[in-house]
Amino acid sequence: MTLPAFYVDDLIKAAIREDIHYIDVTTDLLIDENAETTARFVSKDEGVLAGIEVAMRVFTLLDPAVHFRLYKKDGDAVAKGDLVAEIEGKTRVLLKGERTALNLLQHMSGIATATARCVKLVEGTGASIVDTRKTLPGLRALQKYAVTAGGGRNHRFNLSDAAMLKDNHIDAYGSITAAVAALREKVGHMVNIEVEVRNFEELREAIEAGAHVIMLDNMDIPAMAEAVRITAGRAKLEASGNITQENIAAVAKTGVDIISLGALTHSVRCFDISMRIE
Amino acid sequence: MTLPAFYVDDLIKAAIREDIHYIDVTTDLLIDENAETTARFVSKDEGVLAGIEVAMRVFTLLDPAVHFRLYKKDGDAVAKGDLVAEIEGKTRVLLKGERTALNLLQHMSGIATATARCVKLVEGTGASIVDTRKTLPGLRALQKYAVTAGGGRNHRFNLSDAAMLKDNHIDAYGSITAAVAALREKVGHMVNIEVEVRNFEELREAIEAGAHVIMLDNMDIPAMAEAVRITAGRAKLEASGNITQENIAAVAKTGVDIISLGALTHSVRCFDISMRIE
Amino acid sequence: MTLPAFYVDDLIKAAIREDIHYIDVTTDLLIDENAETTARFVSKDEGVLAGIEVAMRVFTLLDPAVHFRLYKKDGDAVAKGDLVAEIEGKTRVLLKGERTALNLLQHMSGIATATARCVKLVEGTGASIVDTRKTLPGLRALQKYAVTAGGGRNHRFNLSDAAMLKDNHIDAYGSITAAVAALREKVGHMVNIEVEVRNFEELREAIEAGAHVIMLDNMDIPAMAEAVRITAGRAKLEASGNITQENIAAVAKTGVDIISLGALTHSVRCFDISMRIE
Amino acid sequence: MTLPAFYVDDLIKAAIREDIHYIDVTTDLLIDENAETTARFVSKDEGVLAGIEVAMRVFTLLDPAVHFRLYKKDGDAVAKGDLVAEIEGKTRVLLKGERTALNLLQHMSGIATATARCVKLVEGTGASIVDTRKTLPGLRALQKYAVTAGGGRNHRFNLSDAAMLKDNHIDAYGSITAAVAALREKVGHMVNIEVEVRNFEELREAIEAGAHVIMLDNMDIPAMAEAVRITAGRAKLEASGNITQENIAAVAKTGVDIISLGALTHSVRCFDISMRIE
Amino acid sequence: MTLPAFYVDDLIKAAIREDIHYIDVTTDLLIDENAETTARFVSKDEGVLAGIEVAMRVFTLLDPAVHFRLYKKDGDAVAKGDLVAEIEGKTRVLLKGERTALNLLQHMSGIATATARCVKLVEGTGASIVDTRKTLPGLRALQKYAVTAGGGRNHRFNLSDAAMLKDNHIDAYGSITAAVAALREKVGHMVNIEVEVRNFEELREAIEAGAHVIMLDNMDIPAMAEAVRITAGRAKLEASGNITQENIAAVAKTGVDIISLGALTHSVRCFDISMRIE
Amino acid sequence: MTLPAFYVDDLIKAAIREDIHYIDVTTDLLIDENAETTARFVSKDEGVLAGIEVAMRVFTLLDPAVHFRLYKKDGDAVAKGDLVAEIEGKTRVLLKGERTALNLLQHMSGIATATARCVKLVEGTGASIVDTRKTLPGLRALQKYAVTAGGGRNHRFNLSDAAMLKDNHIDAYGSITAAVAALREKVGHMVNIEVEVRNFEELREAIEAGAHVIMLDNMDIPAMAEAVRITAGRAKLEASGNITQENIAAVAKTGVDIISLGALTHSVRCFDISMRIE
Repeated sequence: MTLPAFYVDDLIKAAIREDIHYIDVTTDLLIDENAETTARFVSKDEGVLAGIEVAMRVFTLLDPAVHFRLYKKDGDAVAKGDLVAEIEGKTRVLLKGERTALNLLQHMSGIATATARCVKLVEGTGASIVDTRKTLPGLRALQKYAVTAGGGRNHRFNLSDAAMLKDNHIDAYGSITAAVAALREKVGHMVNIEVEVRNFEELREAIEAGAHVIMLDNMDIPAMAEAVRITAGRAKLEASGNITQENIAAVAKTGVDIISLGALTHSVRCFDISMRIE
Repeated sequence: MTLPAFYVDDLIKAAIREDIHYIDVTTDLLIDENAETTARFVSKDEGVLAGIEVAMRVFTLLDPAVHFRLYKKDGDAVAKGDLVAEIEGKTRVLLKGERTALNLLQHMSGIATATARCVKLVEGTGASIVDTRKTLPGLRALQKYAVTAGGGRNHRFNLSDAAMLKDNHIDAYGSITAAVAALREKVGHMVNIEVEVRNFEELREAIEAGAHVIMLDNMDIPAMAEAVRITAGRAKLEASGNITQENIAAVAKTGVDIISLGALTHSVRCFDISMRIE
Repeated sequence: MTLPAFYVDDLIKAAIREDIHYIDVTTDLLIDENAETTARFVSKDEGVLAGIEVAMRVFTLLDPAVHFRLYKKDGDAVAKGDLVAEIEGKTRVLLKGERTALNLLQHMSGIATATARCVKLVEGTGASIVDTRKTLPGLRALQKYAVTAGGGRNHRFNLSDAAMLKDNHIDAYGSITAAVAALREKVGHMVNIEVEVRNFEELREAIEAGAHVIMLDNMDIPAMAEAVRITAGRAKLEASGNITQENIAAVAKTGVDIISLGALTHSVRCFDISMRIE
Repeated sequence: MTLPAFYVDDLIKAAIREDIHYIDVTTDLLIDENAETTARFVSKDEGVLAGIEVAMRVFTLLDPAVHFRLYKKDGDAVAKGDLVAEIEGKTRVLLKGERTALNLLQHMSGIATATARCVKLVEGTGASIVDTRKTLPGLRALQKYAVTAGGGRNHRFNLSDAAMLKDNHIDAYGSITAAVAALREKVGHMVNIEVEVRNFEELREAIEAGAHVIMLDNMDIPAMAEAVRITAGRAKLEASGNITQENIAAVAKTGVDIISLGALTHSVRCFDISMRIE
Repeated sequence: MTLPAFYVDDLIKAAIREDIHYIDVTTDLLIDENAETTARFVSKDEGVLAGIEVAMRVFTLLDPAVHFRLYKKDGDAVAKGDLVAEIEGKTRVLLKGERTALNLLQHMSGIATATARCVKLVEGTGASIVDTRKTLPGLRALQKYAVTAGGGRNHRFNLSDAAMLKDNHIDAYGSITAAVAALREKVGHMVNIEVEVRNFEELREAIEAGAHVIMLDNMDIPAMAEAVRITAGRAKLEASGNITQENIAAVAKTGVDIISLGALTHSVRCFDISMRIE
Repeated sequence: MTLPAFYVDDLIKAAIREDIHYIDVTTDLLIDENAETTARFVSKDEGVLAGIEVAMRVFTLLDPAVHFRLYKKDGDAVAKGDLVAEIEGKTRVLLKGERTALNLLQHMSGIATATARCVKLVEGTGASIVDTRKTLPGLRALQKYAVTAGGGRNHRFNLSDAAMLKDNHIDAYGSITAAVAALREKVGHMVNIEVEVRNFEELREAIEAGAHVIMLDNMDIPAMAEAVRITAGRAKLEASGNITQENIAAVAKTGVDIISLGALTHSVRCFDISMRIE
């Protein structure tokens, strides 16, 4: 994980508190407090792993005395039946952390797996698969990290680190040209500017205005191909909207540089991994 | 919303901070700070709404001076094109809150819609649709609320408010009978006890032991029907595992009391709602 | 302690911050920063210990390098003069943590001791001693834990994990029968229902309505005995209100299942334990 | 209240979260969300009120739309049956805030009442009644405030704002004289110095050393009187340890300036006030 | 302010808590709690204002009932004696918030004033004045905002929103060319890349590698002029290091695009503004 | 450091989060995650060190596995070129913590150095150099600590731990005498009282009223000397306002006890220390 541990600790603690408000009335009352055991995380699905360190951190926060070994790391392909990790510690701790750890691991691996599937579909083209700001509250850093584990790249993290001009911004200045110029006057020199366009006229204006990146909003495939031809490398082109598993390869072949998909983070299918206690 | 506003405020603030670390370098630099406008939330999907008050709260936290009118409320059916809410305020505030508001609203409505679909499929049987603890970190309260907006009910909120005995707990005491007895000795009198069983022998033992609720773990439909017959109302029966849109009606018709579905909260498909500025 | 360390850490840190806003102007300025010493926690009272791990945690949070040995553990009987624990570390750390550690330990042991006294008074009857929601802000988990250390049990932790119908809830539906039925329609299947009754008519109605637990509100002892006779095991009975050290044995002998006492947590007499530096 | 609202808000929110983890499964499911009512806070005890604004704040935080009128204010004497405050708002809000509000109000009024009793017992002497650092974690500010509502004064708030030399500090320097001199060298000029003494020799040394305040540790009454005579106004004298309702008047008559009592805050008897819904 | 109020609220609350741990022992004990007054913020210095809304927020957080009128706004030039703002409210509130409000206002206005001085010195050249990451812990957003109020621009906010390659990064890849290429492979498409160079050879390599911005590290003025000639607009040039009030005009005249100054935020001279109560 | 680690941890974590919102897009993407290196902190300035433990804590919080050796400690004189500390750990961790660590260390050492300069200038007189409440939000504890590292002393930490009567407080009671008497009636016995005076008449009244400390507000040097003569040791005198490096020795020679300087903390010049990676 590139994130410092204390970044995820607050989220994990919040998740544990959601799951154990006071005590675990089953485990704390029934399991001997000194009993120890080993649990194995085994994949029941096929895809790409993400979040295994985050999942282990759940147990470490419950009890620093647990020990674990990772057999797969984030970004690794996993098949059904693969042993992902093994953890030893107090039975109480393993049982109490199980659900929170799996919730994180299954969600993140779900994202990595869906991303990897898209990356594979565009292989051989120059297109990158990127995420969006359509993330779940409180989970953006982990979700964007999972996208990179799946081989995708990250679009801007948020509204502060890059500029994207949409209709409303452009309308406020009358034209793309005027809006980009106004922004350039004010924005820091390290901030990139992307402009959203709906037709070739806007595309040409955005190129002339000097946009670094241009988003082709809901264009069909022939239109994208034409946009690539018009742009001729003067800006990066981002395809966005109505992109599916079925048409993504065709989109990539138009020559666009970036394909962004909200579904990578807003409609995640969880990846099945189980924790088995011996 | 039954949750006090301050419960969701922390989550919303965290989500806004994820999306605006410092300033919105597009909106804050381009849009006049006194400009005002109206935005309309319009459904682009068909289903059940959840989270509209939470979504409005995003804007109120950014600027208490916004005004909004709700045309649909949580739990209402919405069709494509339905006007859900209208909000007036500073253009900057509406643009800056848009993504965070939609991320919440689309996720919660996605849950309510999926729940409602299941509820409809079991209509006429005595079965309730319930959620699980397979929720996303930090979002459990909102997710469980969305399940109720869709007509579902909530399983235990967490490990503290109800007891569920699984293999590991039972193994520690040698038998269901011994484990339930041991728990009864210690647990508070307001805590309900559920036991997970894998076969009829365990089912009979759990009934005798006085379990309030018994979970039939991954049984097939004929086995569930037999379990209902054996139980004869002496405990509530919960069906869990491998339940899909296809087989849920059949499961319900076996006579089980509760059908729990992790997918309601762990694999949410976002519900499409857009925010349109005039 | 069944609570994960990080649950109490926030409370302990808040308590330390209350006591040391900046530096300890006596200890930090007078005691050599390398001086080390040993402190002994000695009971000056007779009763039941609770909170010794929490107390030690105060020092560990101030300085992870302290070492301690526990001679008594939570739930143990202690007599005057008993050595409870010994701790070695920097003199500064021991002096700075002393008050916060003792404040926690004395309060929690006070609760455990009062609870144990009640438990002893009802020995031989089937009655359990339980706490209430009459706790001190921020301290509920530690107070409820101390009750269990003293041999008591916990009533519902809060308004979310079990239902209790009082006058106002019943009035809203016209009758106990209607209110219980309405609640059953909506509440999760793992939530237990308790009804508060003031007379035998209400008691009979509550039993018929299927209440799991019935609270006999401020009934005198003959009335309680009659309530037990009427109920005949069809629900659990909880005695509550005006219960004192003097009458608690008599209350228990009526055959009620549960005796709840607010005073266990709302009117705690601190238990005297001192920290002695050699 | 002299404390800004946001100081108590965090504590109140924490207390509400302890009591309502998710929803109030009785009130939220049974009471109509638009129902409104009035609740009256009525004293069932005799003493001094403290915490009524804090108690009202509980409801305001749950719903800013509540309205209340205070008939008594903090520091007022209240008798059994006195109407203390009236509050109007949604029935759900009043029921959900009741316990948290009462827990705060009853605890704080218990402190004010006990303090006022001591203040009355020493009336006519020059002695002040003061609190100690023997407070409950997280509650120090409210407890110290309640002491002043009862007519007491506050000892140092914590280890940072005034110096108190005890055995261990003195031992580190060999003598009271040396320790006080060392401290004076280092401590800020606004920090007062108190020295704890066990006999007249130490008392004389502390006076000579220039201590502002001298604590007479566990001296009997004749010894205190002699200490007053020896001191002759050159320092303030604080009586501490083994002071009870029975001997406090006698202690005050010795001429000591300050009488400090840990029990004011470490062994609080809650003051009975009820909330009645019409 | 472009920052939502809740962003600064946490900082302001922390600052108030630093300054009022419990009560203000002077103001709360001496000033009548109903007394009201008016305070005027008057400049005693000449420069550019920043932080007046933040300063007013201090009082609003202490008491929402205060009223204020701003006569100058952030970014306005102020002269000695200028009335900046007037605030009415409880005397206690005004006195208790005074220091915290002034500490913020004087610091932020100090930054805006120093920035404006530099902006004026480079007037007529194409150079922008920008800040750095040499900010004070917890104050970065307010400091960067104050730089913009003074007419400066913001460099990258942090390590997440733009890439800057220094020696260590370049050494890891053997050459600027290799390092930039490696980064481009991995970094999101919205992230700009700046390279730090120490000589013309590195400069030429950075230009060829396609760096968006190149930092000329501690070059003298003739070297900067030569760098501008070499670059010929193919990248933006940033001058950094050893820039003072004396040489900044000469630096700007070399034709560099950006002049960054750590001193704007790491060595702030406070701007004198007083609060006068009538 | 006399402050427990967890006091500074929150500030450091906030500072790190300001600087790394998500990942360090340069270091995390370019530097091998297993690469290790050593960094040396070297002084590039002459003065007094403060904050070296705080600076090291930045790295420890990013990764507990770092190792460091301190060659200088807080309060030590350092010259240009002095090696202050050496730290070994992952290259990523060292690069990611560098800026935050230096921002803290340079600011704190700047304060200690300025303080030490003043202390030296008054050497041989009886005057102490003290700070004020003119600190930066969130940094008061570290700033006041740095003042002591430079040989200064701390004025009151905040409005809660000592009383200072200014015009507004005195006006409320008509006279210094009345105001001091009123305060004495109410304030705790451990709280010291300082009175601000503008002329000899007020000075005499303050002495008679029994003020512990008297602040001579903006008096010139002959007036201060006369004030010392008038006071004759009956109270401590504090010089405040318009004190500079030029006149501070003369102020000290008048015989005042305390010289307070806001500039020590409100106008800090950062002290240059660099971190060099081998």
